[in-house]
Amino acid sequence: MMLSAGNGVPSFTPRVVLELASDTKEEAITWLLSRIRDTQYNGGTELLVEQLGPGADAQEKENPNMFLVGATWQRLLSGAEDLGLFKEFNDGSMRAFTCANKYNFKDFKGDGDSFLSTAECQYIIKHELDTLRAKDETHVPGLSRVKLYPGKSVIRRLLSKGILIQVFPLHEKEELKRLSFAWYKKVKLSFQPLEDIRHYYGEGQALYFGFLEYFTFALVPMALIGVPYYLFDWEDYDKYVIFASFNLVWCTVILELWKRCSSSLAYRWGTLSRKKAFEEPRPGFHGVLGFNPVTGRQEPLYPNAKRQLRVYLVSLPFVLLCLYLSLYVMMIYFLMEGWALSVHDAEPTFWTGILCFIPSVLYAVVIEIMNLIYRYAAEFLTEWENHRLESSYQNHLVLKVLVDMVLLRQSLATLLITSQILNQLMEAFLPYWLQRRRNKKMVRKIHKGKTLEDQELPLANQVRLEADMSTYLGTFDDYLELFLLFGYVSLFSCVYPLAAVLVVLNNITEVYSDAFKMCRVFKRPFSDPAANIGVWQLAFEAMSVIAVVTNCSLIGMSPQVKAYFPDSDMQLILWTVAIEHGLLAFKFILTFLIPDVPKHIQINLSRLEFESREALKKKKILEASEVTKAAQ
Amino acid sequence: MMLSAGNGVPSFTPRVVLELASDTKEEAITWLLSRIRDTQYNGGTELLVEQLGPGADAQEKENPNMFLVGATWQRLLSGAEDLGLFKEFNDGSMRAFTCANKYNFKDFKGDGDSFLSTAECQYIIKHELDTLRAKDETHVPGLSRVKLYPGKSVIRRLLSKGILIQVFPLHEKEELKRLSFAWYKKVKLSFQPLEDIRHYYGEGQALYFGFLEYFTFALVPMALIGVPYYLFDWEDYDKYVIFASFNLVWCTVILELWKRCSSSLAYRWGTLSRKKAFEEPRPGFHGVLGFNPVTGRQEPLYPNAKRQLRVYLVSLPFVLLCLYLSLYVMMIYFLMEGWALSVHDAEPTFWTGILCFIPSVLYAVVIEIMNLIYRYAAEFLTEWENHRLESSYQNHLVLKVLVDMVLLRQSLATLLITSQILNQLMEAFLPYWLQRRRNKKMVRKIHKGKTLEDQELPLANQVRLEADMSTYLGTFDDYLELFLLFGYVSLFSCVYPLAAVLVVLNNITEVYSDAFKMCRVFKRPFSDPAANIGVWQLAFEAMSVIAVVTNCSLIGMSPQVKAYFPDSDMQLILWTVAIEHGLLAFKFILTFLIPDVPKHIQINLSRLEFESREALKKKKILEASEVTKAAQ
Repeated sequence: MMLSAGNGVPSFTPRVVLELASDTKEEAITWLLSRIRDTQYNGGTELLVEQLGPGADAQEKENPNMFLVGATWQRLLSGAEDLGLFKEFNDGSMRAFTCANKYNFKDFKGDGDSFLSTAECQYIIKHELDTLRAKDETHVPGLSRVKLYPGKSVIRRLLSKGILIQVFPLHEKEELKRLSFAWYKKVKLSFQPLEDIRHYYGEGQALYFGFLEYFTFALVPMALIGVPYYLFDWEDYDKYVIFASFNLVWCTVILELWKRCSSSLAYRWGTLSRKKAFEEPRPGFHGVLGFNPVTGRQEPLYPNAKRQLRVYLVSLPFVLLCLYLSLYVMMIYFLMEGWALSVHDAEPTFWTGILCFIPSVLYAVVIEIMNLIYRYAAEFLTEWENHRLESSYQNHLVLKVLVDMVLLRQSLATLLITSQILNQLMEAFLPYWLQRRRNKKMVRKIHKGKTLEDQELPLANQVRLEADMSTYLGTFDDYLELFLLFGYVSLFSCVYPLAAVLVVLNNITEVYSDAFKMCRVFKRPFSDPAANIGVWQLAFEAMSVIAVVTNCSLIGMSPQVKAYFPDSDMQLILWTVAIEHGLLAFKFILTFLIPDVPKHIQINLSRLEFESREALKKKKILEASEVTKAAQ
Repeated sequence: MMLSAGNGVPSFTPRVVLELASDTKEEAITWLLSRIRDTQYNGGTELLVEQLGPGADAQEKENPNMFLVGATWQRLLSGAEDLGLFKEFNDGSMRAFTCANKYNFKDFKGDGDSFLSTAECQYIIKHELDTLRAKDETHVPGLSRVKLYPGKSVIRRLLSKGILIQVFPLHEKEELKRLSFAWYKKVKLSFQPLEDIRHYYGEGQALYFGFLEYFTFALVPMALIGVPYYLFDWEDYDKYVIFASFNLVWCTVILELWKRCSSSLAYRWGTLSRKKAFEEPRPGFHGVLGFNPVTGRQEPLYPNAKRQLRVYLVSLPFVLLCLYLSLYVMMIYFLMEGWALSVHDAEPTFWTGILCFIPSVLYAVVIEIMNLIYRYAAEFLTEWENHRLESSYQNHLVLKVLVDMVLLRQSLATLLITSQILNQLMEAFLPYWLQRRRNKKMVRKIHKGKTLEDQELPLANQVRLEADMSTYLGTFDDYLELFLLFGYVSLFSCVYPLAAVLVVLNNITEVYSDAFKMCRVFKRPFSDPAANIGVWQLAFEAMSVIAVVTNCSLIGMSPQVKAYFPDSDMQLILWTVAIEHGLLAFKFILTFLIPDVPKHIQINLSRLEFESREALKKKKILEASEVTKAAQ
């Protein structure tokens, strides 16, 4: 899609949009553009950048400071080399791309213009923009309040000061149409087009959808076995124990197999062995200016001890207090329910029947409110802890949110599984509907009924339409949803045999609503070259350990099991504890026995390493023998 | 120590000795020597090798086929580069040594003749000898029964066919004298000279002694707290629980801190970030000749599935059967003891008093015999499983031996702690005494009273003396001993408060006996560039998990605790289980919270990586700008 100049469209393929505040001074804009266009040798990025012209039906209120960023193919390829992107080699293995060797990579043709996916191109441009650093400027020209120091990322400083409103990648209308057709518009039963998703949204998104699909299929056996338990109302001790044990082992096995599956995907997508670049501080990080001990660059430093104090003396007590509070609320709920039931049992009328529901409804409402407040507090605290890296911020946030979720929601399991469908509607269709309303307003403004799907939509209007879309905030909430579902299935599997069935049904619709959300509701997100699902793998594993404890105690408490040990409760408990310890030990041994990376990928990885070592050695010996020959 | 030629001594510093069978054909010897001497370009090793001349008082029965191997400094340095040895750089960081950059390394002076430690030189020579590969020979010349194929390690084949009797590194008399003086001959209390040990014996040995020392100091707090429990016979419930809880947390903390300590040592010794070369199959490995999927070289292949079948269908059932048997024997022991006690109680005489001891003595004897048989069987089975790598052989062997140890020896705890001292005598002084007797015989033969310590001993006699010394079989048994001691301390800490004291005392003498053993009894072992204590870390951690279970149940069973819950055993058990789960969870969280590598080492490692990436990038940009200039 090489666009010709004129009609406000740039002379190159636009990939990323920079939106500056409409009142930004001309001097600052000129400086920024020249810095972006400058050669790498001079500390610039060598990217192409042009101002977006007015739309076909320009409005007065339109922000004129929209800039399109692109790059030549040569620049993109050298950026891919800098980033150490892995691509498929001629022999089928994955290797770090190098320009010197480019013709030996599979699918490299001509100038290499279809070699990189659009997600990769956008990721490269984002990386290059992020690493555009101040040289000797003390502030942005024309904006003395935006301080700079040598080595500071210009884009990050402009973002944190609100000069740069947003940076987002553009949708590719043709590709999006093809993707959405293959993904959620087809009615026939099929796997998701993971390769296309990865091509368009990057590895992080594709891994999420891969995990969603894997998880759904993995639950099918549990669902199939659960159905007869529900239908025939089996309350036999042996059958219960068999079902629960199967579930516990199955949960461990599917989590272990997912690691293999995920590393296969990550290998094929080249993110498995890609070395991560040195991670920059997150935009919100603040501290006293100093020198980073690793890079030697100037950047804010914040003492680790201070952060630890904040974590252990403020956040941890707060989380524990909230836990205590939530357990207290749960106790009140149980008391209320007991009271309501006793009233109903004493003199059952229609009104006492309704009374029985009130505690549950009240509890559900209170829980949702407490959750909202807690989630807000968790985000605030994690921000306040001032983590240097995005990844450690995420880990601390996940930890706080999970502690809450597991304990608060456990008594609401069935209630929530049914509410899940409502949740999906809320999450995908409410923003869509809001978006539609906003679009309509805009459409009314530009007097034409054009949407993103319209092939005729001019670029200027498309960019402005996308700039107005909601921002996708990452996979956090999507994984959290799956995590809660996994909790319902594993924690209480022996009590609700139907849980797996409901989760499978939910996941099938989840695929469609999430796909719809990604393609139609949100701005396109930047790709995230993930190699695995990160901290969530750990969270799921921790949940499966807790599940062993809950299931064993639930079975131990069931009257059928108690009947087996009529004489002594003690023997019952000892047996339960022994079986629980056995299951836990078995789980750990299993985790240990199943290798995380499939054998053939391990072989490929070691071959790559072996070859590079041998090449180095051979080169050295040849050089030495040449030196010897020259000396003779 | 550059030796002058003449009197059977070589013209270079001899480092390693090759002893060939005395009836080896001349043709084979000539071929082997020429292959060793050949240039690397031609597939040789470029090492120096000479036959050892007859001793000062040559005996007729002496084996003439002893060869001394050495290398020029240049060759050793290029070998160090091949191996990727890490050395200290001028700026204090550790970097992979390269010849091109040699003058920037700390302590590199002149030709670099004191730059590498003797252990490193010997390790390099061993590695070069091991990687001497057959070219197109189908068998060793003159020995048609010793088959070869392209790529087969010549030395390993000669060893497995018994042509090469042994390969061992030589002791360095001066250095050994200094080391042994600093290590065990000084009487004053001080730390072990770990740097010197590492310099002389390599990283694997130094890590063992470092661990031994660390372990001893780490147990001191437990010993100090344990003493009053023993002296004042405290049997108070609260004090018991406090002692046991302290022990459990302490065990976790010391194991976690050891990881940090070990990575500090490994960083300083340059083994932490050194990449391991591709591991060769162990000498005993056999299979059908095929192509290794990683290296593409010809080597024996053995299907993994077949190995798994052997492990799961033969070894595993065998181990389980042995466990069952040992539990059965333990039951018999308890029955016998119960019977003896009842006889003694009924009518106590002197003879019934002795009768009470008989079951323990019998049990101890039976256990020792069963252990010996089991150990032999475990080695046989692990050999039969035909593991390709030495490391996986070791892991499977450790696993088998540990399973046995933990269960068999637990009831013998106190008995064995006292027998430990006997063990040390057996292990260090018995071989020494045997050695002395053998030496005396030899000395009598050569009509002179010379030993290894004698500075006047000619090289030829020294080599022959060392060739006759026992071979040190690695750190397996040393770690096993420490592991058992750790088991006594952690598993039953609440019952035997004095265990830690005994272990500390034992360890102090252990240092001396092990040091003596290394310096005087055994052949010098080849250095092993280990970065940690390997599978033993895992074994110790597993033991500390089991310790939580045993301690909680022991406390739960104690009459003092039972008195707290007079009405219901059930409540007692529930509390015990709850506390046990809490402790286990706390342990795992603690393991997670304490980083394995100290912060400053992490920073050093990332700086190294960051610098190499930046250098690569800068080089690329410079090249690109030069191309641009040339084009203009």
